[in-house]
Order: sequence, then structure tokens, then C-alpha cells
Amino acid sequence: MSAISNPPTNTAAVSLPPVPLTIEGASVLHQMMRVRWTAWKALSAQDRAEIVAEASGVLAEMEKNSSGASAAFSLLGHKGDLILVHFRRSFDELSQAELRLARLKLSDYLDTTTSYLSVVELGLYESSLKTYKTLAERGIVPFSPEWNAEIEDVLARQREAMMPRLFPEMPPHKYLCFYPMDRRRGEAKNWYQLPMAERQRQMHEHGMIGRRYAGEVKQIISGSIGFDDWEWGVDLFADDPLVFKRLIYEMRFDEVSAVYALFGSFYVGIRCGAGELGDYLGV
Amino acid sequence: MSAISNPPTNTAAVSLPPVPLTIEGASVLHQMMRVRWTAWKALSAQDRAEIVAEASGVLAEMEKNSSGASAAFSLLGHKGDLILVHFRRSFDELSQAELRLARLKLSDYLDTTTSYLSVVELGLYESSLKTYKTLAERGIVPFSPEWNAEIEDVLARQREAMMPRLFPEMPPHKYLCFYPMDRRRGEAKNWYQLPMAERQRQMHEHGMIGRRYAGEVKQIISGSIGFDDWEWGVDLFADDPLVFKRLIYEMRFDEVSAVYALFGSFYVGIRCGAGELGDYLGV
Amino acid sequence: MSAISNPPTNTAAVSLPPVPLTIEGASVLHQMMRVRWTAWKALSAQDRAEIVAEASGVLAEMEKNSSGASAAFSLLGHKGDLILVHFRRSFDELSQAELRLARLKLSDYLDTTTSYLSVVELGLYESSLKTYKTLAERGIVPFSPEWNAEIEDVLARQREAMMPRLFPEMPPHKYLCFYPMDRRRGEAKNWYQLPMAERQRQMHEHGMIGRRYAGEVKQIISGSIGFDDWEWGVDLFADDPLVFKRLIYEMRFDEVSAVYALFGSFYVGIRCGAGELGDYLGV
Amino acid sequence: MSAISNPPTNTAAVSLPPVPLTIEGASVLHQMMRVRWTAWKALSAQDRAEIVAEASGVLAEMEKNSSGASAAFSLLGHKGDLILVHFRRSFDELSQAELRLARLKLSDYLDTTTSYLSVVELGLYESSLKTYKTLAERGIVPFSPEWNAEIEDVLARQREAMMPRLFPEMPPHKYLCFYPMDRRRGEAKNWYQLPMAERQRQMHEHGMIGRRYAGEVKQIISGSIGFDDWEWGVDLFADDPLVFKRLIYEMRFDEVSAVYALFGSFYVGIRCGAGELGDYLGV
Amino acid sequence: MSAISNPPTNTAAVSLPPVPLTIEGASVLHQMMRVRWTAWKALSAQDRAEIVAEASGVLAEMEKNSSGASAAFSLLGHKGDLILVHFRRSFDELSQAELRLARLKLSDYLDTTTSYLSVVELGLYESSLKTYKTLAERGIVPFSPEWNAEIEDVLARQREAMMPRLFPEMPPHKYLCFYPMDRRRGEAKNWYQLPMAERQRQMHEHGMIGRRYAGEVKQIISGSIGFDDWEWGVDLFADDPLVFKRLIYEMRFDEVSAVYALFGSFYVGIRCGAGELGDYLGV
Repeated sequence: MSAISNPPTNTAAVSLPPVPLTIEGASVLHQMMRVRWTAWKALSAQDRAEIVAEASGVLAEMEKNSSGASAAFSLLGHKGDLILVHFRRSFDELSQAELRLARLKLSDYLDTTTSYLSVVELGLYESSLKTYKTLAERGIVPFSPEWNAEIEDVLARQREAMMPRLFPEMPPHKYLCFYPMDRRRGEAKNWYQLPMAERQRQMHEHGMIGRRYAGEVKQIISGSIGFDDWEWGVDLFADDPLVFKRLIYEMRFDEVSAVYALFGSFYVGIRCGAGELGDYLGV
Repeated sequence: MSAISNPPTNTAAVSLPPVPLTIEGASVLHQMMRVRWTAWKALSAQDRAEIVAEASGVLAEMEKNSSGASAAFSLLGHKGDLILVHFRRSFDELSQAELRLARLKLSDYLDTTTSYLSVVELGLYESSLKTYKTLAERGIVPFSPEWNAEIEDVLARQREAMMPRLFPEMPPHKYLCFYPMDRRRGEAKNWYQLPMAERQRQMHEHGMIGRRYAGEVKQIISGSIGFDDWEWGVDLFADDPLVFKRLIYEMRFDEVSAVYALFGSFYVGIRCGAGELGDYLGV
Repeated sequence: MSAISNPPTNTAAVSLPPVPLTIEGASVLHQMMRVRWTAWKALSAQDRAEIVAEASGVLAEMEKNSSGASAAFSLLGHKGDLILVHFRRSFDELSQAELRLARLKLSDYLDTTTSYLSVVELGLYESSLKTYKTLAERGIVPFSPEWNAEIEDVLARQREAMMPRLFPEMPPHKYLCFYPMDRRRGEAKNWYQLPMAERQRQMHEHGMIGRRYAGEVKQIISGSIGFDDWEWGVDLFADDPLVFKRLIYEMRFDEVSAVYALFGSFYVGIRCGAGELGDYLGV
Repeated sequence: MSAISNPPTNTAAVSLPPVPLTIEGASVLHQMMRVRWTAWKALSAQDRAEIVAEASGVLAEMEKNSSGASAAFSLLGHKGDLILVHFRRSFDELSQAELRLARLKLSDYLDTTTSYLSVVELGLYESSLKTYKTLAERGIVPFSPEWNAEIEDVLARQREAMMPRLFPEMPPHKYLCFYPMDRRRGEAKNWYQLPMAERQRQMHEHGMIGRRYAGEVKQIISGSIGFDDWEWGVDLFADDPLVFKRLIYEMRFDEVSAVYALFGSFYVGIRCGAGELGDYLGV
Repeated sequence: MSAISNPPTNTAAVSLPPVPLTIEGASVLHQMMRVRWTAWKALSAQDRAEIVAEASGVLAEMEKNSSGASAAFSLLGHKGDLILVHFRRSFDELSQAELRLARLKLSDYLDTTTSYLSVVELGLYESSLKTYKTLAERGIVPFSPEWNAEIEDVLARQREAMMPRLFPEMPPHKYLCFYPMDRRRGEAKNWYQLPMAERQRQMHEHGMIGRRYAGEVKQIISGSIGFDDWEWGVDLFADDPLVFKRLIYEMRFDEVSAVYALFGSFYVGIRCGAGELGDYLGV
């Protein structure tokens, strides 16, 4: 077979759905902000102190917010000075968080340079493959009422079991690495035309690398198809930023990354808790 | 046949037009706007209240406009704070709506970050295939006066039958997802070189997925070839935003999407009726 | 032969020039402008009236300019509020027109968002093919003095015959559609490597579609190789904007468009004569 | 062999360096500037006159600068109002010229929209091929001290002979066309993998076209690998701007341009001498 | 084998990790800044002198900073006026340097146009190949505790031996060339799918060219996978800027560059020491 042809479409299992079972959790918003330093520095020390007091008060509340936490990080480089990560129960709560920040006096000294909207997601490749095969063997037609009920059952059990991963705590690590990514849909190499078993195999190998870094890095994957300009967002949290580079470099040789991953901009931040905001802003 | 070759051009039916019959309805303009919060917050409460009163009065009128409604949604993320969707009878009416908003006092506190111009469209693939074949069998030459008259007849009947879809009401759902898209014209994979019967087959499979989501999401497709920078605009309306992600993700494995769909930016909004504008703007 | 290979280079006619005979006419400048509404609305009614009076006076003159007319259109969407189209006898006259507008008081309230520089052009594919063959049969060596004289003769006759198309009147239609385009030079599909006879054939088929729309749309093609960032600019004028969509959509299935056309941004405007400028600007 | 494969690498001459001998001359900076007309027009006539007097005095000096001239052109379209072309003996002198302009009072009314940094360059393809072969036949090992000495000898003689082309006068023509370009490094078509003899052949054919335009256009090629974002800059000077279009269009059918040339933005200007600056700026 | 197929994956050594051993050193931040000349020139001479005194005092300290030096260069062209290069022991120290500069009075007259975040990196291709083979021959399973210990041993020895290259002094040369780059992951040519022995061979040939320029140019490679938008940053320092062009042009014909290198923007600067800052800023 020609090296540049697409893998064969899964003819034997043509009636099985190609989309993996997927469960969703927290709504996520990343906000990248730049401090307008000149205007900020022009304020009196007292004005700055009052503005920071208001802002760090709100951030402190958001850090402990019961329906999903927020966290601030100072960004390195020109892409922004601060990145805020918000986990919430819904898009409405994200919108409220956004509005609450926009109404802070501090926001008069911030420009939002970019943002990212997504939902924490777990793609259940192994479970999908097993479930789809079992249902096929039982002769249950995809998308029939019986099939839908069985699938909803699997999803409900997985949501229950995965609850802590779907609605994660904000990891406590010092460094954040965030980037969006796509699966390639090239003319010759197209992730969405691979058979599910092949995608499952590649994702499994990919996961094996992540597992070796489990003690050093906490990863949260969120899906953004239909929500933002890339298909997924990746958040990595670690206490040593070199781990970001080592993990991502090692993964880049994986088939699923080497061939099928396209990356957007990378954002690296250092945690800036509510209590550290004044320091960062020179108050 | 080589895996990366184009599908064969339809040699047997070489004289049939490749373009599907298409009917058009409402003219559509999307406007994405950012609130200049700092300037807005600097106004007195009374000024803000007066400005909102004027703006929500106009928006309320537009929501009920008899020749096509408008609706506002608050956007999530940095792409803007508000998105306005206008359905109208003509480009001239869209231009009037645009000017009317530009003359609002509120517009001094809004920047239009982007926009999208299109016309509601229904592509009649099945009807085209049948009509073209029937006319060919009757020996009627494409684009002859007789052919044109028969085609105009088909279009007129379809326009009549599809009137509610061509000039839709503004769907009442809480969430909006808007994105523009193209059909791929790659060097190896080119939608516009597929025979019509193959395009019809792929569009039909695509439609089958949409049908399963019919109760959960309302879709309005508008065409923008010759009007804006992508070929089509897609509006999805739903009461649960997760449905956007599930529908678009499932469709991405379709042949027509996996191979032939290219996507622009995605915009997600929460409905903000005329009566809610003051709340959103902190009045 | 492999489906993705380039068409064979024209080995039999290897000594014939590959470039088609081309004749040029009016110099053309498109200027897209955004009104700075906030500053504009802050002026007194009297100031606005005076500024519009000056501007519409100059526009009225330009509309009737004897060495090539100008016209203004109000744009739909965020790409700008006004588009000015200038036809002139030379780049120097275009530069004068640009400067004259820049010196208007109204220009303090306009930002030029983009522009396009080109020259009205007719590519004489059929004439080229015939002329090149005839000269070859007569044994005249390309680019010899005799060859050059014969070619210059053909060009002079064509320029004479085509004068009204080379230096067109400003079409009177209500709607304008402007977009720039390239011919593809891909790794596998490369317009500039097709033999001239093949290019002529594809252009001819392309022209056949245009001919069917002749009563509904007026098309002016200008060349911009060496002048601006795309190879050609296309202006369509019509009294029904839906015609733009239908024409361009139908052409997109043509081989020359499906495979070899790459498009830039599309701009759609509604004519705004000198006498309508005040209305548009709310005076 | 497959039509989309790369040409064979030059196996017989595998030890010959693939890089052509290249000699460099003047350092070149292009600066594209936009006039802030609103602020400029707000000045009193006297202020404008004084500012222009200072600026045209400096430009007049630079036009006659003994270590390399500068010239100003008024640009057509929105890419800028002025383009300055500086030839100098070194990057340090370019930096001095840049600083000297930045310190002009006029610069408070100019925004630099873009720029291009390069060095006049002559690629000696024919000489390289001959020299490399001769040295190989004499058994001299590439990059050995003997080889280096012979090469340095060739370069020195060429630099001497080409001095007027390496450090050119500013051509006196009225119109300027500037654009940057790359040689393609595609997956299937890669200039840098062609054998030198093939590159020499294509460059030679390319040069043949240029030769026919020698009386009408003056071309200066500068190299920018390592200096700016494209590999080369091209300056064309002519008294009829249509020549730019005809030359570049004809060349586009050349194999080296059709397949291997990628182009950036095109800038077209009309000469604006020191003495004409006041006129242009409305003084 | 087809010319456009990927090289075979290393089937014989399928269990060997594909990622080369890599050691990291200094954290690096590049900051590109533009002077707001109009505002700067509007200051009184005394204000400018005081502001420069403060800034050059801080820059002088940073130039001698014991945990990693900083250096300033004046940029040529519109990409910025100054580029600051910071070497530090950690991202936290980089963040401190960034904040310290942001708090300078001079920063009110600077805009940061772009930046680049990376870590000095040495890829140990030859050592990796040897080590992986040796461990395989000894039957040690990759990523087993024994394997990890052996690898950590190699890395520790290499870090020790390479310390001066991992934490380099700021080279004293007058000119800087900085650019980011990627390894291509194309559909047909994909660096990350080459077997390690093939990558090692190509990198070795690439290094041979660099070696010939060793006396003329100092190169520092930093890795930015996970940190910024390209995979690597390259800094070249030399006393003759033409060397940048010659070295990069010669390397472009290398297989590893011709086929697998993708380049971002190029930045060229002239050293501007703390003591020269006043001169540059016209104080």
C-alpha cells in the first residue's frame, strides 16, 4: 500500500459509529490579560493599593468558589501578564465570572489579549470499542432506542466513576502550561478517517508516555469543538517547568502526535495567588 | 486507483450541470462587538441608564421586526462581548439595521470586532439530481429556454414549500453557536470536482446525523459565496450548549466533514434579550 | 499517468511563449474606509453638514471625471463603511485622487482599512494561440524583431477594438462585489505549468458561464501582478446582489475555478452617490 | 519516475558543495511609512513648512550620500504613504539612517508600517558550476585550505568586476516596485534539493527573460536569509509601471518562478524627491 | 520506494525510544521592544537624561548579573528598536527581570512587540544512539528502573561536561541574529517519524557546516517545545553580520534544513551596551 494513502476505512465494522463515547465535566475559560503598566504606574500608591485590595478579594473568593475554582498565573513574555483559569459548572457561571472581573476597577488597567473556551472532557476510546462491539454482537442497531439506552447507561456509569476528573480541583502546582490543539485533517493524513481501533491504539500508546510523567505533571484535557477555534485545550500543571518540555517533546515522536497533532500558541505561567497579586503589581 | 487521486469526474453525465439547485431566503448579518468597559464604567449611573434605555428600546423593536428579526447574545471570551444576529428581507434592510445601531449612543462604547454577511440557503441536492436526470432523459438541453423554464418551475415550487425555512423566525433557544466554513478545494481532495451524485450521497449521510439531533438543536445554514470570506455560515441554537460540541464532533467523522470541511472561528453566546441588556451592562 | 501529476508541458510547442497576449487599460484603485462614528457623531450638526458638503462636492466631481470615474459604495459588515472605486488613466492620477481625498476634512473621520491597486486587463487567450501558431508556421522566431513587430500589431488592433472594455464607464448598477484572486501554483496543481491550449480551453468554458449572466451582471477584471498581493481583482456590478452568489457558486465547479482559483476577501457594497453621502453619514 | 518526486540529488557530484558562490555589496533597508494625516493637517501652515524644510533637507543629503544613497517614493494604496529605500556600506550606517529619520520632527507624523533588511547580492551560478568542476577535476578537496584559497580568489575577482552592480547608484526611474520572495521548500517541490546544474539551468532561462526587458527596467536583487522574513528582496525601477506587471507575469511561467517562487507583499511607489516632499505633504 | 513516502520507521529497533537524550541549561527570554519616539522626544532633555540614567543603571547590573547575564541590541527595521536577551537560572528569575524592566520609567516609552521563551538545550544524538544500543544489547528494558538509572547517569555526566555550554556567558560579539524554528511535520516529510539513526546522520552533517564557521560565529540553541510557539530558538553572535547570511544560506542546502526546517521571523541587532543606551536614545 502506498505510504501516503489514508488508512483503510473500517469496512468490516462499517455500521459502528466512528465517534468515541465522550463524557464532559466542568466548563473552562482561560483569559490572557496584559497590564497597561504606564497607566497603572501613573496611579498613586493609595489608589493602586485600593484597586488591588478589591481585585485580590474577588480572586480569593474565586479561588475557593464551591462550584469550580479560578486561579491566576503571571505569564512569561509578551503574550500577556496574567492568565486566569476558571473552572465552573456551566457557561452561564463562566459568563458571570467574566463579567465580575470586567467590573473590577483593576480591569481598567488590563487588556484581554486572548481567551479560550472549553469543557473538561474524557474520551473513552477503550470503553467505546468494547461497548460498540458487544452491542453489535448482540445485534443491537446503532442509534436504535435500545442502543441509545445501553450507551446512556455506559456514559452514566463512567460519569459517576470519573466525577473527580470531570470536575477537577485546581491543581496546586506552581507552573502552568496551556495550549490548544487539533487533530490533523490533511489531504493524505486524516485522523477522522482512521478506524476507531487504530485511533484507540495510538491514543493508548500516547497515554503510556503520560503515565510515566504522572508523578510530575497533572494534565487536564478540555474539548472545544463547537466552542473555540481549536478542537482541544491542554492544561499541564507542574512544580518544575522543564517537565512541560520533556513530556511534550517525548510525546511529539508518538504516532498520534507526530502525524496527527497540530498545535496553537503555548502559554507558560507562574502561579500568582490572590495574596501575591499586590506584589506582582508592585503595590 | 491511487488513494490520493480525485474521484473520477462524472463522464457519463458530462452535460449535466454540476451546481446543485439552490434557493435563497433571508439576508443575514452577524455583528460581533466588544464593550469598551473602561469608558462605559466611567459614565454616571444616570448616563448609562439613559443610553441603555435607548439601546434596549431599539433592540426590542428589532426583536419583533416584521420583515425579519434581530437577536443579541452575550459572547464568551475575548472575541467580543455581544453578537447581534439580524435576519432581513434584503441587504438594504441589513444596511439600515447596521446604520441604526451605529447611530445609537451605546455604539460609542462598542467596537465591532468582526462580522459575517450571508443569505439563508437551501441546497437541493436530491431534487437537483432527480430534475437533472429527468430533463436529460427527456432530451432537454441544459440552459436551453425549455430547460430554464423547467428549472425555474422546480425552484418556484421549492421556494413556496420551504418558505418557513428560508425566512425563519429567530429560534427561541438560550445558546447560540456561529461559525463559517468552506468546502475543501485541495490539490488531492476537491469537493467541487466530485460528481453530484457523490456529493448528494455525502450530504445525505451528513443530514442523517443532524436529524438525530433535531429535537435538541435548530440549525440555520446561510450561503456567503460572493458575500464574505467563507462559503457558508452555520448558526446553531440550543438550550444546552454541550449539544453544539456533541453534534459537531459526531459530524466531524462524516466523510463530507472529515475530508471536505474547513472551519473558521467559533462564536458561542448566551441570549441577551432587550430587557436583559441593562443587567449585562451593569445598569 | 498519476492523477496528481502536473499536465505534460507542451513539448511539441516548446518554443512558443507560455504567456498569453494581454492588453491593459485603466488604472484602478479600491479604497476601503471605516467611519470613526464616535468622533463623527461628536461634531455639531453644522460641522457635519459643512464637512459632508465639501466631501460630496469632490465625490460628485470624481463621479464625472473625464479621464476615468470614481464611485462610492456603502459596505456591509465590519470590513469598512465605504468603498471607493477609482478608474484613471495612470497611477499618477490615482495617487492624485488618493491625496485629494486624504486632504478632505472628512478624512479626519475615516480610517483606510485596506486597498487594492490594479490595471484593467484583457487576457487574449484565443488570439494568442492563433497568433503564436501562425507565426510558428511562418517560421518566425519568438522575440525576433519580426515576431515582436507582428505581436505589437496584434496588440494594437486589439487595444483599438477593446477600447470601451479597457477604459470602462463606471457601471450604473446598485450593488458592487469586489474580490482579489490568484491562480494556484500548488505542488501538484499549477496553473502556470499548464500548456496554453489547456489554459485557453478552461478559460473558454469559464467564459461560457459568464456569458449566461451577461444581462444580469457587469464584470471588470483587473490585473495586479507586480502591483498588489493577489494576481487579479474582480469587480462585479449588479442590480440584485443574489446574482453575485449564483454566478460565483456556479463558476466554482468549473475546472479553472475548482482547481486553480484562490480567493481573497469579498467586499459587498450598496451604491452611495455623492448626493446620498449626507444621508449615509446622518446629516 | 513519479511526476511529483523530487529531482534526483546529484549523486555523481555528491562531494561538490550545493551552495552557489555568492558575492555581497550594499546593505539595504526599505522603510514603509504612513502619514498621520489628521495630526499633520491640524498643524499650522508655518509649522508644517518648518517640519518639511527640516525633513527635505535631510532627505536631500541622503539622496547624495557618498557611501550609498537614499530615495523616497510615495506609495499607492493603504500599505503606506511613503517608502524609503536606503543603500549603505554597512548595517551600522543603515541604523544611523534609521535613527536620523526617527529624530526628525516629521517622524512624529509618520508610522513605520513595515520594513525590509537585506544586502545586495549576486549569485554566481555559472561561475560556481565551472569552478567547482575544475577544482574537482584537479582533485582539490572541498573546504581544504587549497580549495578555500581558490574560491576566495574567484570571489575576489568577481567582486572587483561586479563592483558597480554590488554597490549600485540609486536608479533614476520614476516608479519603484518592491517585493520579497522565497524559493519553495515544499514536500514535493524543493528548490534546495535540486542539483546545482539544474538550478543553474533554470536561473539562466529566467535571466533570459530579464535580458529582454533590460532597456525598460532596472532590477536590484538583495539577499535577506538571516536578516529578514523572506529569502530575497527584489527592487524594480522603471519609467512605465506597466512594465512591472508584464515582466513579472511573463516570468511567472518560467519553471523557476512557476514552481519555486513564493511572493510576499508588493509595494508600488512614485518617486518623491526631497524637493517634492512639501508638495506631497500639502505644504 | 516512492520518493514522497516517509522513511521506514525503525522496525528493527522498535523498542528503542525515539526521543534523543537532551540536557537543559539557562532559561532564556528575548524581548523585542519599540521606542515610542514621539512621546520620548516630547520629554525635556533633563527628564530623558534621568530616565536613561535609571535604565542604563539597571541594564549595567543585568549585564553583569551573576546568575545569568542580559544584553541589549538595537534592532534594524520596524520589528522593534531594541531586543533584550536574558539568560537566567530559572523562569522565576526571568519573570523578575521582566517585571524589573516593566517598572522602569523608560518602559512608559517602550512597547513590547514580541518575545520568545526558551531554555538552552543540547540534543545528544550521538550519545543517545550509543547509549540506547548498549542498553539494548545488555537486555535492559527501556524505562525500567535500571534503564532510568543508567540514562540519568549519562545525563548527569553530560551536564557536568557541558556546563559552560548549558549556562553560557553572553557572547561579546557586536551583532546578533535571532530566529525561531520548527522541524517539519508534513504529510509526506515528517522529521518526527525518521528513525533516530537517520536524524543523527542528518544532524551530524548539519553540524559539520557549523564547525567550519566556528571561528566566526557563536551559536546558542534553546528549546521551546511547551514554552513558546516554535520548537527551537537560535541565537547567532558575530562581528560581521554577513556571516549570518552565509552560514544560514549554506545550511539551507543541508537535508535537515532543506527538507525539515521551518523558520519564523528573523531579528538582527547591533549591540547597545548599558553605556550606549543614552546615545541610542538621543540623550
